[in-house]
Amino acid sequence: MKITEETISVNTKHRNQMIDITSQVSSLVRQSPITAGDVIVYCPHTTAAITINENADPDVCHDILLTMSQLFPQHRAGYRHAEGNSDSHCKSSLFGCSEQILISNNSLSLGTWQGIYFCEFDGPRNRKVIVQIRGE
Amino acid sequence: MKITEETISVNTKHRNQMIDITSQVSSLVRQSPITAGDVIVYCPHTTAAITINENADPDVCHDILLTMSQLFPQHRAGYRHAEGNSDSHCKSSLFGCSEQILISNNSLSLGTWQGIYFCEFDGPRNRKVIVQIRGE
Amino acid sequence: MKITEETISVNTKHRNQMIDITSQVSSLVRQSPITAGDVIVYCPHTTAAITINENADPDVCHDILLTMSQLFPQHRAGYRHAEGNSDSHCKSSLFGCSEQILISNNSLSLGTWQGIYFCEFDGPRNRKVIVQIRGE
Repeated sequence: MKITEETISVNTKHRNQMIDITSQVSSLVRQSPITAGDVIVYCPHTTAAITINENADPDVCHDILLTMSQLFPQHRAGYRHAEGNSDSHCKSSLFGCSEQILISNNSLSLGTWQGIYFCEFDGPRNRKVIVQIRGE
Repeated sequence: MKITEETISVNTKHRNQMIDITSQVSSLVRQSPITAGDVIVYCPHTTAAITINENADPDVCHDILLTMSQLFPQHRAGYRHAEGNSDSHCKSSLFGCSEQILISNNSLSLGTWQGIYFCEFDGPRNRKVIVQIRGE
Repeated sequence: MKITEETISVNTKHRNQMIDITSQVSSLVRQSPITAGDVIVYCPHTTAAITINENADPDVCHDILLTMSQLFPQHRAGYRHAEGNSDSHCKSSLFGCSEQILISNNSLSLGTWQGIYFCEFDGPRNRKVIVQIRGE
């Protein structure tokens, strides 16, 4: 098994934002020696996440973030965490801090409409994403 | 490391539906040459998901879908995406488009009550699921 | 590729509880012969989950559990599942039953503030967690 690992930098501009990182991940896969296997896209932050969703119509991301803001408002009676970002931590656990995408023929096996997103839930911040590519 | 990859077809009948695909995944694992490792069950669609939950009492799936429909109604003030399925995209990111199950002795290491479900959130549609089995 | 698998026991004390299992997982990684690769932390139960979130301020876990209890109350009109834990099954699918963490230099590559949590959503119970370590 071959394993390569790279880091992507993401600078976010808003408190809640979905940033398409598909092309960066795809480039790293094509530059790797791996033709079959998988890539793990891992977010080492606790108020952000990685998700896979539609990257054709940007209104989809707008509507996802709107929904999350309504269900998880920044302030909630009973919150104790003094940083004021308990909503961000909730969203991080619900979306999850990593995604795994299959690799065939040295390319990402994403569905037709799928893109890989870095989800910022407590920006703006300078973030990083770890990309581990594994296989044969 | 050995890697095999297969595709399962799933034809859904309702807008929201959980379909147990455990037996199909289990068969692919047993037919593979892999005795220890893992299987990735990957959904290449952006309005569907893969989850693991109880497969003993079908009322569990009923209650999960009821909960999701109440928290994520199809229409919400402010939605922009013209296809009318923004709720489906939200559910897809929250449940996640893949699950990973361990393999021991050429069999799935699921818990006693666990089954693998394809989650349709914008059906009825003809869907596919990619199953990658990896290990020794 | 080398693969090792171990089991951790977790005894929960409350109906909803997040228990930090980072040190146990970290010890298993250090005891393994694997220097680069990943670890899958897998929960074989359908009313519990695994998540990664902040382990510096315990108020973060308090606020996450508070949020989940408010959005997913134990009783909801229309629930059919007779065990009275449909909310627990929902939370399990939303948080997800496994997490994958990268390994570098025979150590977990967690972010500065990240810890690995076993999430109990229908306790108190005696639970187990499967830890599969894979790589070179």
